[in-house]
Amino acid sequence: MILLTRRATFSAAHYYFNPAWSQEQNERVFGRCANLNGHGHNYTLEVTVTGSVDPVSGFVVDLKWLKDVIEREVLDNYDHRHLNLEVPEFASTIPTTENIAIAVWNRLQAPVTAAGGASLSRVRVYETPDIFAEYRGE
Amino acid sequence: MILLTRRATFSAAHYYFNPAWSQEQNERVFGRCANLNGHGHNYTLEVTVTGSVDPVSGFVVDLKWLKDVIEREVLDNYDHRHLNLEVPEFASTIPTTENIAIAVWNRLQAPVTAAGGASLSRVRVYETPDIFAEYRGE
Amino acid sequence: MILLTRRATFSAAHYYFNPAWSQEQNERVFGRCANLNGHGHNYTLEVTVTGSVDPVSGFVVDLKWLKDVIEREVLDNYDHRHLNLEVPEFASTIPTTENIAIAVWNRLQAPVTAAGGASLSRVRVYETPDIFAEYRGE
Amino acid sequence: MILLTRRATFSAAHYYFNPAWSQEQNERVFGRCANLNGHGHNYTLEVTVTGSVDPVSGFVVDLKWLKDVIEREVLDNYDHRHLNLEVPEFASTIPTTENIAIAVWNRLQAPVTAAGGASLSRVRVYETPDIFAEYRGE
Amino acid sequence: MILLTRRATFSAAHYYFNPAWSQEQNERVFGRCANLNGHGHNYTLEVTVTGSVDPVSGFVVDLKWLKDVIEREVLDNYDHRHLNLEVPEFASTIPTTENIAIAVWNRLQAPVTAAGGASLSRVRVYETPDIFAEYRGE
Amino acid sequence: MILLTRRATFSAAHYYFNPAWSQEQNERVFGRCANLNGHGHNYTLEVTVTGSVDPVSGFVVDLKWLKDVIEREVLDNYDHRHLNLEVPEFASTIPTTENIAIAVWNRLQAPVTAAGGASLSRVRVYETPDIFAEYRGE
Repeated sequence: MILLTRRATFSAAHYYFNPAWSQEQNERVFGRCANLNGHGHNYTLEVTVTGSVDPVSGFVVDLKWLKDVIEREVLDNYDHRHLNLEVPEFASTIPTTENIAIAVWNRLQAPVTAAGGASLSRVRVYETPDIFAEYRGE
Repeated sequence: MILLTRRATFSAAHYYFNPAWSQEQNERVFGRCANLNGHGHNYTLEVTVTGSVDPVSGFVVDLKWLKDVIEREVLDNYDHRHLNLEVPEFASTIPTTENIAIAVWNRLQAPVTAAGGASLSRVRVYETPDIFAEYRGE
Repeated sequence: MILLTRRATFSAAHYYFNPAWSQEQNERVFGRCANLNGHGHNYTLEVTVTGSVDPVSGFVVDLKWLKDVIEREVLDNYDHRHLNLEVPEFASTIPTTENIAIAVWNRLQAPVTAAGGASLSRVRVYETPDIFAEYRGE
Repeated sequence: MILLTRRATFSAAHYYFNPAWSQEQNERVFGRCANLNGHGHNYTLEVTVTGSVDPVSGFVVDLKWLKDVIEREVLDNYDHRHLNLEVPEFASTIPTTENIAIAVWNRLQAPVTAAGGASLSRVRVYETPDIFAEYRGE
Repeated sequence: MILLTRRATFSAAHYYFNPAWSQEQNERVFGRCANLNGHGHNYTLEVTVTGSVDPVSGFVVDLKWLKDVIEREVLDNYDHRHLNLEVPEFASTIPTTENIAIAVWNRLQAPVTAAGGASLSRVRVYETPDIFAEYRGE
Repeated sequence: MILLTRRATFSAAHYYFNPAWSQEQNERVFGRCANLNGHGHNYTLEVTVTGSVDPVSGFVVDLKWLKDVIEREVLDNYDHRHLNLEVPEFASTIPTTENIAIAVWNRLQAPVTAAGGASLSRVRVYETPDIFAEYRGE
């Protein structure tokens, strides 16, 4: 079994705001992230699949295929978007780094599984080089 | 003469949109950056001052002072903000990487000059690790 | 369950020296690190906690809180210090990267556990970009 | 138990080509990597060993020894070489990132085990900063 | 005047060999780089143009256009190629980092100049993160 | 003319202390750096030489030779040393990043000039990834 990882990046805007709370409570919990004008990040995504190496090709999966899946399922929907306003899974879920990792997992698991040969093992999302969340599907 | 550089980072949202143009023309020139919901970046800033080394302290300038100037003049106004909506110099100027470099220069030149001992030499702004603009005041 | 990581840095001096050994044996085992004048590094620390995501805040833990804990428990005691001479746990334990990882774990486990909601999962310490140690508490 | 990692780099040429296939099939599966003139990379290798910390030295293993083992077993054979043409394990196995990770594991496991005190835990190979494979020996 | 830089990467094979010299002399001057099987690198390229900022668009040049020029003129010819065997300017010139920087300048200067509005200012080529050459056209 | 740069690293301890001042004044000016137990950094050094490209070798200078000069003149004297206590030029000059850049220039200029063919152009010293000084000899 080999773990194979492909990194990708996207740039997006977001804010942290719970409409059930007052403005004061949002600012106390979320600090400057509660600014409804939004701010943004260059996110880095690491998608890891696991499987055995095909003895003929030397591949766990074709990295070109994996890149296309990540672009179609994630980057086309997240890159240069406002996560709260334009991405359905964040309409009522706050797009924290943790929730983005879960959402990317949910977008990728079915197409990776459907391809056969490998399974999705890990999704890591860096909001900045100093903050990252990792989800393994359980 | 020594060049001394301090790096800093901020996260902000922006969009590229010229209200004198049609939506179509904005999208043709600015592509996905024309999305008025905004997107964002982790910007990295490199501020370089130049001067002679004080023989007593070994400093061109006190880096703690330079850090404070950058925070007060730039980060407090840009970090976790929407550049187009909240930063005066981008109310009618598009916040491209080039214009951000000029704006940071304009914010820093007076306080650096006023302190004496060193002059502002260079401002470099990275929008992503792959794109950066540099302004030297002329 | 999500793994959430916060990175931090500190700069410190240290040396490797076992007083029960002769100078020659110290130099044979520890090489240039046995120099009692000390040398130093910019250490990078990655602290990982694990827990479930709070559905209201979207957080595993508040990263601002985690940053404060790391600063109070680790950075305030290690940064700009001589590890052998000023940090109690290295008075008679050699501050190798391995031992620093264990010591950071020991400093953080109680306050992270006391806060509830998440547990300390992993501490990784980079002595240089090319050398790092990781401890998981067992 | 501590995980201790040492990073190393090497520069090598390779191509992806299965002689049992036609030129067309090689190009369809391997794209530009099928070019028999070869291309190359700066590979980054992370070798992780695991063990308990020696209470006297503070070491899991001596990192100088680990560096020497990696140089003798891997770098002396891979660096500035053409992997397909000069490295025996790639004479009939395609040197994908996955297969390089397995080959490095196979080269290192015996000498690390023979030294006692620690076992080989993980080999990670970066072909570029955006693509890496990891093998744990099973 | 603003300096605007775009980074790009390519992976290629090369060797250093002067056919007018004996094998021994090649190995004495070029060391392991004289291996005619070739080796390779992930090259990083920084292309800097200079000009004034268009007050309407906020651009020195359109970075999408600059990216396309770099891809068409450089990457399509260098990426996943053997520089000595497949790139005309290196048929009889050794593809050192210095000569690659000059060659990239020569490929880019005419199309950048022809576009008007900005001039090519600097080409920097990294062979590894630790070695880079820079050419400014004179 | 080409600028050719080689990067190197060293780890050292230092403190900032002016013996002509009181302890209070040292702490006011130098903050935590005034701690006489010392602290330390992983310094990164970039040494740039400039010259024309030898048409036979494709070299401005032989990078192996440049590496050896840097090791002999700088790293052998600075790495794993206490700069204040063990390096003559810092016996009475505070080893700030600025002064280290000047000292490295002074150590390298004669041997680089003596070799002929290229001149020393620039020395850049990073104390951390966020702070660097650059000296050009004038």
